[in-house]
This record gives sequence, C-alpha cells and structure tokens, in this order.
Amino acid sequence: MSLAPQSISTSMISSSSSAFLSPSNLNFNSRRQNAWVQAKRISVCKCVAAPQEEKIAYKTKVSRNGNLGKLQAGYLFPEIARRKAAHMLKYPDAEVISLGIGDTTEPIPEVITSALAKRSYALSTQEGYSGYGAEQGEKPLRAAIASTFYKDLGIEEGDIFVSDGAKCDISRLQIVFGSNVTMAVQDPSYPAYVDSSVIMGQTGEFQKDAEKYGKIEYMRCTAENGFFPDLSTVARTDIIFFCSPNNPTGAAATREQLTRLVQFAKDNGSIIVYDSAYALYISDDNPRSIFEIPGAKEVIPELIIYLFCCSCTRLMFFLLSFVAIETSSFSKYAGFTGVRLGWTVIPKELLFSDGFPVAKDFNRIVCTCFNGASNISQAGGLACLSPEGFKAVHEVIGFYKENTDIIVETFNSLGFKVYGGKNAPYVWVQFPGRSSWDVFSEILKKTHVVTTPGSGFGPGGEGFIRVSAFGHRGNVLEACKRFKHLYK
Amino acid sequence: MSLAPQSISTSMISSSSSAFLSPSNLNFNSRRQNAWVQAKRISVCKCVAAPQEEKIAYKTKVSRNGNLGKLQAGYLFPEIARRKAAHMLKYPDAEVISLGIGDTTEPIPEVITSALAKRSYALSTQEGYSGYGAEQGEKPLRAAIASTFYKDLGIEEGDIFVSDGAKCDISRLQIVFGSNVTMAVQDPSYPAYVDSSVIMGQTGEFQKDAEKYGKIEYMRCTAENGFFPDLSTVARTDIIFFCSPNNPTGAAATREQLTRLVQFAKDNGSIIVYDSAYALYISDDNPRSIFEIPGAKEVIPELIIYLFCCSCTRLMFFLLSFVAIETSSFSKYAGFTGVRLGWTVIPKELLFSDGFPVAKDFNRIVCTCFNGASNISQAGGLACLSPEGFKAVHEVIGFYKENTDIIVETFNSLGFKVYGGKNAPYVWVQFPGRSSWDVFSEILKKTHVVTTPGSGFGPGGEGFIRVSAFGHRGNVLEACKRFKHLYK
Repeated sequence: MSLAPQSISTSMISSSSSAFLSPSNLNFNSRRQNAWVQAKRISVCKCVAAPQEEKIAYKTKVSRNGNLGKLQAGYLFPEIARRKAAHMLKYPDAEVISLGIGDTTEPIPEVITSALAKRSYALSTQEGYSGYGAEQGEKPLRAAIASTFYKDLGIEEGDIFVSDGAKCDISRLQIVFGSNVTMAVQDPSYPAYVDSSVIMGQTGEFQKDAEKYGKIEYMRCTAENGFFPDLSTVARTDIIFFCSPNNPTGAAATREQLTRLVQFAKDNGSIIVYDSAYALYISDDNPRSIFEIPGAKEVIPELIIYLFCCSCTRLMFFLLSFVAIETSSFSKYAGFTGVRLGWTVIPKELLFSDGFPVAKDFNRIVCTCFNGASNISQAGGLACLSPEGFKAVHEVIGFYKENTDIIVETFNSLGFKVYGGKNAPYVWVQFPGRSSWDVFSEILKKTHVVTTPGSGFGPGGEGFIRVSAFGHRGNVLEACKRFKHLYK
Repeated sequence: MSLAPQSISTSMISSSSSAFLSPSNLNFNSRRQNAWVQAKRISVCKCVAAPQEEKIAYKTKVSRNGNLGKLQAGYLFPEIARRKAAHMLKYPDAEVISLGIGDTTEPIPEVITSALAKRSYALSTQEGYSGYGAEQGEKPLRAAIASTFYKDLGIEEGDIFVSDGAKCDISRLQIVFGSNVTMAVQDPSYPAYVDSSVIMGQTGEFQKDAEKYGKIEYMRCTAENGFFPDLSTVARTDIIFFCSPNNPTGAAATREQLTRLVQFAKDNGSIIVYDSAYALYISDDNPRSIFEIPGAKEVIPELIIYLFCCSCTRLMFFLLSFVAIETSSFSKYAGFTGVRLGWTVIPKELLFSDGFPVAKDFNRIVCTCFNGASNISQAGGLACLSPEGFKAVHEVIGFYKENTDIIVETFNSLGFKVYGGKNAPYVWVQFPGRSSWDVFSEILKKTHVVTTPGSGFGPGGEGFIRVSAFGHRGNVLEACKRFKHLYK
C-alpha cells in the first residue's frame, strides 16, 4: 500500500496551463463530489462546519520523463486554440475569423471525395474489403507520388513511405535518429521540429533569456538575409531541418540557395530533412523538391571517380551524394488536414556513418510504431493525383493564392513590410519593435481575427505575425476590412 | 567533399533481412546501371571483359541510433509476410490460406461503411467540410467510447484519446515514458510492447541464449500457471504491459487475477498499460476492462482514510488508486485494421512520482507527434457504437468466434493440447518439444497455410503456434481439412 510519506503531498492535478485539463478538472471535481458523498456514508464527522477538502493524491513511483519536462508551455497551435476559445467566451457575439492555425477551409473536390466514398462502400463487399495494408503505403499510391512529384529526379516508388501526415513522420524520423544526434532548424520554423527534438532528448534545457533550447542550432532567417541562413555562421549538426516554402515566413529557397545547403550538408556529413508541404504553392521556378538539387539524391556522373584495378576487371565507383530526406503532405494541397495523408521520401542510398541505410531503420519504425495510413485516405490520395484530381487540387490552391494576394495587398496598403505570400499560403507581416504575442492579442481583441504570433515559431519570429490564407473568401475580405480599420 | 578515408568502405546497402529492400535492390541496380551507362560515356576503359563493380557508397557522418541496432530481425508480422511471399513464389499454384497475421477478412457492415461514405461526401460541402480536428478525437466519439465501454466505471469522455490504432498508441506511450523506465511484459505477448521498449532505449542488448532483452522483466505465462504470471517471482518495474484477452495465447484473465495484478502494481507504484483490443471476444464473465477492477481507476470508499484536523474544518482524503492506462482498437471489432481507429484511456488522476498527470504528457505527445485519427475513420467509429452498428459488429465477432470453434475442434480431434479460442480470436496450439518456426515452416510447406510461430511472441511461446480465426469460412474449413490431413 503506497502510503509512504514520499507519496503524499498536495496534488498538481489542478494546475494546468492548457485548455486540455480544464474540463478534466470539472470531471475530477464531480468525481470528488461522488467520493465525498460516499465518504459521508461512512464518515464519523459530526461537526456542522463544512469541511475544507485537501486532496492527497496517490502517485505512482514512475519518474516523469525529463525530456517532456523541458518543453515550454503547450504546443503552439493548441495554445492558440485555447486563446481563441477564451476570447469567444468573453465575446460570445463576436464573429471570430480564424486566419491562425493554417487549417484548410474549402471543400474537397468531388472527384476526390467520390473516391473516398467509393473505397468506403467497397469495404462492405467481399471483393473490396481490405484489412492491414502495407505499412509503407499502397503500391499504386507510392508509384503515383513518385511519378507526380519526383519524375526524372531519380526517386522511385520504393523510396516513398505513405503516412498519416508530415508532422507524424517528423516524429517517426526523430525516433529513428534517437537522442544522440544534434540538429539545426531555421529560425523561425514550424514548431514540430524543435519540440520533437526536445521530446527525443536531443536538446538541453530551455534557455529563457535566449528563448532557445540548448544544443539546437538555430539558423536565423531574417528579412535581411532573404530568409536564408548565413551558412558560414552555422555550426555542423547531424540533422538539418529545412522547410521550403517556409512555414511561417513563406519564403521559398532558390535553386542556388538549396545548392549551397546541399553542399553544406555534404561537407558536414549531415542529413537534411526537407519539408516540402507547401511546394505546390510555388509560383516561380524555385525548386519544389530538394531532389531537384544535384547531389541531394542523384549520382552525379561528373563526380564519379573511377578506379580500375590493374586487371581492369573491377570498377569501383563512388556515390557522392544522398544527403536528403523529404517529407510532404496532402493536407495543404487537397484539404486533407482532417483526412490525414502524407509521405516521406528516403532514398535507400542515404546511409548512416556505419553504412546502414536510413530507410531501413525508418521502415522498421513504420512497421513497429505505425500501421500505415487509412486505406480510405489512401484512395483519396490516389484520386488527388489523377489528371482530373490534380487539376481540381490546383484550382483550390489557386483560390487560396488569391486569398494570399488580398492579404498581402491589405498590409502593403497599410504601410507594413510584408513577406511571403508569393510562394506560400502564409503572409509574414512585420511589426518592428513589438512583441508578437502583444500584436496577436491586439488583433484578436480589436478585430476578432485569430492570427499566429511569429515568436511561436522561434525567437527569430519575434516582431512578426503570420496570417494564413486558408479561409473562405468572405472571411478573408472581412478580416482585411477589419485590419484596415485597425491600422489605417 | 566527403572523400575522407573513414567514409569509404563497401556499402551495406545490399544486405537485407527483410522483404522491404528486395525491390529496392532492384531499383538500386537499375539506377546503378544508369550510372554505368553514363559512366561509359566518360570512361577511358577499353577492355572487353565486363568489369565487376564495387560500390563505394557515400556515407553521412550521422551515427546510427544504437537502440535500433539492438532490434532482432524484422518485426514479426512483416517477417511472416516475407516468408509467405517467398512460399508463394516457390509454389505459384498453391492456394495459400493465411491464418497468420491476425488480419480481419470479413466485410464491414453497411451501416458502418455508409457512415464512412457519408462523411467522405460531406467533405465536398461547405457545411460538411472539416479540417484539423481535436488531436484527442471528436467529442461525440470520445463520449460514445466512454459510455459504451466504460459506463459506470468512472471513465469519462475527457479520459479518452482517439487514435489511429492501439499499436501506434503503444509507441506514443513509450515516448511519454522515455528511456529511463523499466518494463515488464507477459511472455509470450504481442511484440510491439518489447520492440517499442527497445526502440526507446529502455532495454539492454538482446541476449541470444535466453532470447530476451536485458532489463525487461518477462512474466512467463504458461499452460501450467493458466497463462497468468506468478507475481511473487516478478521483479518490480515502472511499467507493466498486460494484454487480456491475450495475444497470442487467447487467455482472458479472471477478475481475481486482475485484482492481484492491480494490487501488485499499487504495491510497486507501477503503471499498468492494459491492452483490451480483444475484449469483445470474451464469452464468459471475465472483465472486459481493467477499470472494472477496484483500484485500477475508481476511488474506493472503503480505503479512503479520513484525517480531520483538530478544528474539524479540514478533511484530507487519499485517492489510493489510478494505476492503469487502457488501450484498445476498432480493428478486431469492426474490421478496421485498414481503416485505422483505436483509443487509449488515461485517467487524469494517474500521476507520475512528482505528481504530474500522465494524461497531460500524453496529450502533449498527441498534439506534437500526431494530429488525430482521420475524420472519416472517426465517423465510422461513431457508427460502430450506434445501437445498429454495435449489433452488426457483434455479428461479425460471432462469425469469427464460430471460426475459432472450428479450429479448436480440429486440433482437439487431432490430439493436440489447445488453449485460447474461448475468449479470443486466437487458438494457441502446443507442439511439445518442437521449434515454433519449424512447425510454422512445416505447416506452410505441407498445407500452404500461414500460421504464426509462438516464439515470435517471446521465448515463452516456444513450442506453440498461434492460429488466427480471422478468415473466410471456406478458407478456415479448408485449412482445418489440411491440418487433419497433415496431423491425422
């Protein structure tokens, strides 16, 4: 019986910094009241004064994982959802518009939902039923991804791992890498890279003054450097997370910049994890995949070094490249944020220092910690890549890009410095000298529009807010009207 | 340029113990041939003899995660799939029947697929479209799971985390626990517990002689102890994985046994992770949830200790329990193995030794490393729990249970000792003194029926094979006919 003194103290159960446990506390209280009712039945207390209760909770003897203790506050987007909910509670009549979390809003084209429904119905038939699929994804979908996004880039069906989303794959990649690697990220960047790194124990503690975790290399991306890091100042790390078009800045790296990045990775023996979740939003001729960069994947004939032994029967050739992994998603292309479908490309020639293929370890994680994406979602993904589906997908992307133009024009007209937008569904608006969270709160309070504070993406995002172009047209227009009213 | 000597050696790329890299090797060869063609263009080689190639692969300087290096062979079921594929290649005309991997085979009832299709179509409409859902799952589904499976057990909607399957949740739980916990498993048991523990770095190396990983407590479950471990011989661990009805033995623990298990966990301050994925297969009155056991979850009035301070205005009460997490799945209930839907219950009063709620850390992992189950799958799950859907689900379960009876009768008639079956879709057949893999191979070779070798579930499974009842009736009857022919 665990009533030893060390297990008795005031419980932390009621302290919570996230919305998650708020209803829980209510539940807990209701359970506590039940216990109290039951307690009264066998209590010998006769006094009239209502007793004050103090919870002395039972605690297990299992230590909390120290890595989770390092994480700061909540994950960014649930935190924004919490603030939005609190705002709506305070202003129940306000017409709140969300241009915050980057969640798609437009219906999925029928050519795609028909495929989702068809696969659903088929599961009721002997011929159409399927159980466990290949953990790596269904063969036709893997092939379609390879041919649609990586044609002539040397990526083949077997290099593609279909998943339930890029965020999930980022964590699975971190499980592969383990706790002993070092990592670099763009600053600012999508928080899942840093948070998953902290969770896996790759980092030191959070340093409050710098707003950075120890042992992570933050590659500062500013307006001054065109949102591409000065690699000459970046320390060597094992892993380099790189997102282009970038979330949140909206900047798409150029071919020349990515060529330098690949060379930097090769010089350091690093692995690039390239997040191309927004690649289809690129309007110009910047690369849509890291594998467009010579050296990221392909054997470069010019660089092959031939060594013939004396008998001339033995040819040794060096494969000089394979430094990148690419992760992507149907979320922002086809409105699959709720349907859940993504993929990760790991060339099988990408090797750890001992020569072991990274893809083989990733495959093991996919088989052991995952069971493949939903077969229904995969049918939808295949429909997205049909000629008709891909056309429909581009129309929805075109719609969001029109939204982007409206937002960019609005902030430009108000005299703000505005970045992003051209190649991404995100507009990155500068508020020099101001705190991002203050601006976020000001906009929410005065316009009832939810944005995302730049500093939520890293210290490099301070002084910016991200405005998402995912929204109904009417909402985007209304939000821009309110922005104009606030900042005119 | 990484041509330093340490990065040059013969590549391991072509060595593979799994089916996964077989096509990859072909692909690699095709790419290599391309390179060779390109090479010839600039080669100065004039000799006639075809040169033997030796790959000198580029390797990154990223060290492989040592924990993954500890894993033995492939994950069990992909390994079986590989052997099945090899068998089919060897016997292309054989009618292979799979009673191996435990994959559901019967169509999903229409009342459920209609809901899947309806939600799919709705995604094409402004009103029906939904993007990111709550990472923890949709509220109506969480509520339905709570009321269907945990009514009167004190589990509420907020305790339920909806997921893409129990296997995925087991890994997410392991991420929560981290590398510094110790763990116990039933031996034999579903391999995901042990493998995910190895991956997270909780274990020592694999000890070939014992066929066990160091630092894992294997709780031997044998015919002699009724497949329930002798807890007096089990060392204290932080985490206890316990699956009932058990996969692979099919044994469902009794109320008395689970009461002892809960008491054991409380005495040790351990957390039980209870896998109830097969609970609906229970025919008798054994518990379907760990939360049926007093102390696993509920406040026990009899055990509340009241301490009144002298002024009698302060009541301190001790919550003595909350030792269990439960994970479960729609896979084996509704044929959702490919649709992907499961859930995990974490009472918010379950605390780490420092008083921090386990649910809060799990919630953080769910928000950071996962994005919720597919909204379509969740609509299907809700339909499963409607009165009509739940009835249909039970009919399919009834069908599989008839299969189980047929398999049990077959092996009984052949004089084998047969376990399981009554409360689970698995029949556990003893082959005294024989190697499980040998029996597996014998059955595959001579009957073209795929089973699962007991030793794949741990050393305690040696001498057994698991026969799954998931199959079309004709296949089960045919397989049993072949078993009778082989072992008559």
